[in-house]
Amino acid sequence: MLNVRLLGTGQALPARIVPTREAAARCGVDPDLWTARTGVHARHWLSGDETVLTLGAQAARHALASAGLALADVDVLLNASGSQAQPIPDGAALLARELGLHGRAAYSLHGTCLSFLLAVQHAALLIHTRQARHVLIVSSEAGSRGLNPRQPESALLIGDGAAAALLGPATQDGQGLEAARFETYPDGADHTRIRGGGSLLTPSDRHVTPEDFTFDMHGLQVLRLAREVVPGYLECLRPGLSVGLPGIDRVIPHQASRAGLQLMARCGWPEERTEVTLPHLGNVIAASVPLTLHQAREAGRAPDGDTLLLVGTGAGLTVGGLIWTL
Amino acid sequence: MLNVRLLGTGQALPARIVPTREAAARCGVDPDLWTARTGVHARHWLSGDETVLTLGAQAARHALASAGLALADVDVLLNASGSQAQPIPDGAALLARELGLHGRAAYSLHGTCLSFLLAVQHAALLIHTRQARHVLIVSSEAGSRGLNPRQPESALLIGDGAAAALLGPATQDGQGLEAARFETYPDGADHTRIRGGGSLLTPSDRHVTPEDFTFDMHGLQVLRLAREVVPGYLECLRPGLSVGLPGIDRVIPHQASRAGLQLMARCGWPEERTEVTLPHLGNVIAASVPLTLHQAREAGRAPDGDTLLLVGTGAGLTVGGLIWTL
Repeated sequence: MLNVRLLGTGQALPARIVPTREAAARCGVDPDLWTARTGVHARHWLSGDETVLTLGAQAARHALASAGLALADVDVLLNASGSQAQPIPDGAALLARELGLHGRAAYSLHGTCLSFLLAVQHAALLIHTRQARHVLIVSSEAGSRGLNPRQPESALLIGDGAAAALLGPATQDGQGLEAARFETYPDGADHTRIRGGGSLLTPSDRHVTPEDFTFDMHGLQVLRLAREVVPGYLECLRPGLSVGLPGIDRVIPHQASRAGLQLMARCGWPEERTEVTLPHLGNVIAASVPLTLHQAREAGRAPDGDTLLLVGTGAGLTVGGLIWTL
Repeated sequence: MLNVRLLGTGQALPARIVPTREAAARCGVDPDLWTARTGVHARHWLSGDETVLTLGAQAARHALASAGLALADVDVLLNASGSQAQPIPDGAALLARELGLHGRAAYSLHGTCLSFLLAVQHAALLIHTRQARHVLIVSSEAGSRGLNPRQPESALLIGDGAAAALLGPATQDGQGLEAARFETYPDGADHTRIRGGGSLLTPSDRHVTPEDFTFDMHGLQVLRLAREVVPGYLECLRPGLSVGLPGIDRVIPHQASRAGLQLMARCGWPEERTEVTLPHLGNVIAASVPLTLHQAREAGRAPDGDTLLLVGTGAGLTVGGLIWTL
C-alpha cells in the first residue's frame, strides 16, 4: 500500500457546448443513429481564446481551492495529458508558466488516455517515499483540434476539457494506493492513432495529407482486443474483478465509448456503482478519468474512506487500473 | 536512498555520420567558426530505413545483452525520449511493438532533454517499492527531422541516436539513488521550442509556416537563465556542488552545448571527471545523458561502486540531476 491521499479535485470545461446534432451535421451523418452508437449527446469544444493551457490552469486552481491549499504548497506539477500542447518544451513547463509556478518540478507522464492513472501512481510513489509532499496532476485535452469529419466514430466521440487533482500524504490508516497495474498490447498500436506530428511523419514529408494529423480510430478492433485481454488483466489487478467488484465501492472508468463502458457491465459490475460522464462530455482522452472522479466527488459518491477502482483502456492498446482507498 | 542498480546499458547510432563541414554547407555558414562555437565536429543523422523505433529497439536489445537478461525479464518499459515518434499511441507502445514486448507496462516520462533522468527516478521508485523488478529505459531521438537550416546554432548542434539502460534491485549496501531534484523556470519556456505539432498550433491552422515545426533555440538566453538558477539548484541537490564535487566520482552531463558544458567548469568541476560526447555525437536531446553514461561504462570510467552525478538543463527551462551510486 502506497501512502497517498486525494486532497482535492477540479475541472474546467470550454464554454461552448456542441450537441451531437451540430457535430453530426459537420460529418454529414444522422444525429440520432450516432447518438445511439457513441452514447454521446453533447461535448464541450474549445472556442475563442481557450487553450489546453488556460483550461488546465483553471482546473488546477480549482483543485487547489477545493483542497484549501495554495500554489506555493505544490512540490511537483505533473502534466498527464494524452495530447500535447506543443512538442517542445514539455506541456508541464507551459502549464507552470500559465499557473505562475516557478522553481518546482514540472514534467509529464504519458500513456495517452491512461496518463492520469500513471500520474497518480507516480505521485503516490513520490509521496510514499517522502520525495514530495503535495503533487498537483493536470490533464487537459483539446482533441477537437485534430478530428476528421470523415470518421464520425471518432469525430462524434471526442470532447475537450481539463481536470486536476491534488495529492498529499495519507492522514488515516487504510488510506492509500492498494494496487496499480498497466499492460500494453502493441498488436493494437494501429487501432487508435494520430500518425503525423512526430519524427516518423512530419508536415514536410512527401505524400503527407491533412488527415495524417487527425485522430484515426477503429473502435471495433479496439473492442475485440480489449475483450481478449481485459478479463485476465483484471484478475491480476485483483482476483475476482473480472466477475464482480470485490472490495470496491465505486468504479471511475475511462469514458472510452459506449461499447467500452458496456464491456465493464459484462464483468458483473453493477451500473449504479459505475460513474459515467460520456453522455454530456464525450471521451475527453486523459481528462476523462479525473473529470469523472471530480463528478463523483462533487456528488458525494466517492467520499473519503471509499475504495475506488480507476480503470480503462487507451491507445497502445494499454489496459490500466488503480485501486485507491480515499 | 532508493534501492536501485544499473544492470546494463546499450546504444544505437545511425549509420550516417555527418561532419560539421557537410552540415555547415547546408546552412551556408563557415564550418570552422561553427565547430568552434558549438563544439560539435560530427553527429549521426538518420538515413534509409532508420527510425527512432529501430534505433530504440536496437539500443534496448544491447542493454539487455549487456545485463545478461532477456526481454521476458522486463516488467516495465519506459520511453524517455524528448521528441515523439508519433502523437498517438505513446512512443512506449510503438517501441514495445518494435521489440516484441507484449502484456508488460509501457509508458513515457517526458521532460525534453531531462527525460532519461526522470525515468531513472521513476524506475528507482518502482524498484524500491517492489512494484517492479526490472525496468528498461529507452531514449531515442531524431532531432534531425525538425531542424531549421536558417538557424545554425541549433541545426549544427543536434544529432540523432538512441541509448537504453536496464535497472534492477541493488545487490550491495550503499548502492542506489541518493538524491533526485528537478526545478522548472518557465520564464525560459520560449528560449527552446518547437511551436507546431500540438493542439496550440496544428498544420491546418492559418498563417502556419514550415519553420513552426522546426527546432528554435536561443542559446544565449538559455545560458543567461541557467547561470542564474543552476548554482542555487546544485546546492539544494547536495551542498557544495556549486563549487566542487563532494562525494562524486564522475559527472555525466547532458551535452546541451559547448557553453553549457563550460558552465559546469565554472562550478570547479575538474574536466577529467566530466564525461563528454558532444564533439562526436552533438546534442542528442534526451539520449545524450544515457549515451554519455554508456560511453563512461564501456570505457571503465563508471564502474560499480562509483557515485555519479547525472545533471543537465532542458527546455522549460528545467534543471535536473541525480546522485546515483552504482
